[in-house]
Amino acid sequence: MKALVYEGVEKLAIRDMQRPVPDAGEHLIRVHAVGLCGSDMHAYLGHDERRPAPLILGHEAAGVIEAGPQEGRRVTINPLVTCRDCAYCRAGRENLCQSRQIISMPPREGAFAQFIAMPDSNLVTVPDNVPLATAALAEPLAVSWHAVRLGLEALHPAMERRALVIGGGAIGLAAALSLAAMGVDDVTLVEPNDSRRAYLTEVCGQTCVALAETTAPLVIDAVGYAATRATASQVADPGGVIVHVGLGDNADGLDIRRMTLQEITFIGTYTYSAQDFHDTAQAIFDGRLGALDWAETRALAAGAAAFADLQAGKVAAPKIILDPWA
Amino acid sequence: MKALVYEGVEKLAIRDMQRPVPDAGEHLIRVHAVGLCGSDMHAYLGHDERRPAPLILGHEAAGVIEAGPQEGRRVTINPLVTCRDCAYCRAGRENLCQSRQIISMPPREGAFAQFIAMPDSNLVTVPDNVPLATAALAEPLAVSWHAVRLGLEALHPAMERRALVIGGGAIGLAAALSLAAMGVDDVTLVEPNDSRRAYLTEVCGQTCVALAETTAPLVIDAVGYAATRATASQVADPGGVIVHVGLGDNADGLDIRRMTLQEITFIGTYTYSAQDFHDTAQAIFDGRLGALDWAETRALAAGAAAFADLQAGKVAAPKIILDPWA
Repeated sequence: MKALVYEGVEKLAIRDMQRPVPDAGEHLIRVHAVGLCGSDMHAYLGHDERRPAPLILGHEAAGVIEAGPQEGRRVTINPLVTCRDCAYCRAGRENLCQSRQIISMPPREGAFAQFIAMPDSNLVTVPDNVPLATAALAEPLAVSWHAVRLGLEALHPAMERRALVIGGGAIGLAAALSLAAMGVDDVTLVEPNDSRRAYLTEVCGQTCVALAETTAPLVIDAVGYAATRATASQVADPGGVIVHVGLGDNADGLDIRRMTLQEITFIGTYTYSAQDFHDTAQAIFDGRLGALDWAETRALAAGAAAFADLQAGKVAAPKIILDPWA
Repeated sequence: MKALVYEGVEKLAIRDMQRPVPDAGEHLIRVHAVGLCGSDMHAYLGHDERRPAPLILGHEAAGVIEAGPQEGRRVTINPLVTCRDCAYCRAGRENLCQSRQIISMPPREGAFAQFIAMPDSNLVTVPDNVPLATAALAEPLAVSWHAVRLGLEALHPAMERRALVIGGGAIGLAAALSLAAMGVDDVTLVEPNDSRRAYLTEVCGQTCVALAETTAPLVIDAVGYAATRATASQVADPGGVIVHVGLGDNADGLDIRRMTLQEITFIGTYTYSAQDFHDTAQAIFDGRLGALDWAETRALAAGAAAFADLQAGKVAAPKIILDPWA
């Protein structure tokens, strides 16, 4: 099969690779759509020691089961493989399983390839009327869905349901869409990049500002750098909640004194539970997350150029989807 | 009346001051016991711009109503004066009231004095069998009671009820006692100071270690410096909760990457709600917070020496109580 292989810092190449062989309980899936994530970009730049070259990246995939009794079943893939038996898994917090794996991180290859093998329990059936390129958005949307769910659960019931989302990339936009799907209709995206802000406003119908100038009870930091955490800890209302999604840098930024004196809660979040993934997929299928027409599809063969364009700031769309069969 | 007045960095003196005149709805209270808090020490060292000299410090007080229809009523004092009308006050989160005042911070003088005037709604009646020096512990205990309550509320129901408390001062000890009162019986205090650790073990019956070597689902940072936050963010279990009580320094310390990947929640906490204060006082009166025999009483006239001894590390007891009439 063809795969886009990460071979070193800023080096990606299409290679002929062995087609994966499914283990017991797994299916071989023909990948039709796979999104490019900020974490793939991190790895491509050599910033993610968890993803050493050579490696097939990509973990936002949808496709069709290739063979066996379920041949032809259209599925979107939950890329987190967990033990399903530890206290965290049993509590429905699979993302905290200490033996969790994610495709695109050893020992599991990623989905920038024509085929991938996945456990049956990681698959969610996609209805015939939903394009697989849309279904592939379930993964990034689930990240934000989970973050928003935790934030709303932590928010004191007496506080207004109003949110600021810092960062207008796919995760920030997905957070705004998830908030709307959960009934929070007063959401403002903070995005300093003019062309991205124009896209979010005009194509995605979002309310955007260049700088956070008001406070909010719920603040989603969908970037995860010291500078965005500094903003988040200034604009969260007293008694409010900051949800932190990104892995930009490791430390600094938070105004701990203000957070202590004003009782602000900070929640680190990573990926999603299996239930969140299912709920997000269902919300996509039901249309509750909007038209989801903000992804741009390119051929997997043009994947290296897509990374380079993204890195050069030449992409206005919040998400690029690669098609391994185009 | 006599009062211990903070007159400048490391300068305290007993002065003759005007007896306070109660406003409508307030009582004049003869102060019999008033605790010395870390925040008083902060002010004494010139580190708290909210408490400029000259000022009467002290906010952990109990005493007796001096005159009027309630003359002779023994009370412990909630030092937070709030508007009782804003959304936060109406939600029972008075500590977040944006017009909150606390005695010992302008415009309100503190309780290192023979008398203080306080609103009736700030007073909790002390039963005859409870010494006023014990009742004065309601304030620091309420700080920890509140912190522990928020931490336990935020802890996922599937997680073990087990806690590490970083710092064995009054707030750390009070957190351990509050945890026990709320049914958490596996609590370890982390205190590097040998004599303080010996006191906590031998006098207070606590489980203590010099260094945190195990993890826990709930971690209380009862110190509030970058170094203790760094420890807290290393020893919190995945999916766990850090509650941060202190105002040691403003920033740094947290391992944000670990907190994000392992979904750790950080809650800043400050003081308590009116209900927490009442609940804590009741727990003191019922004996649920233990013997509370770990405070050392000195005369207010010897207050300057008490500050100096504390600063020199010469005090093993977690709390010094001053008696303005000794």
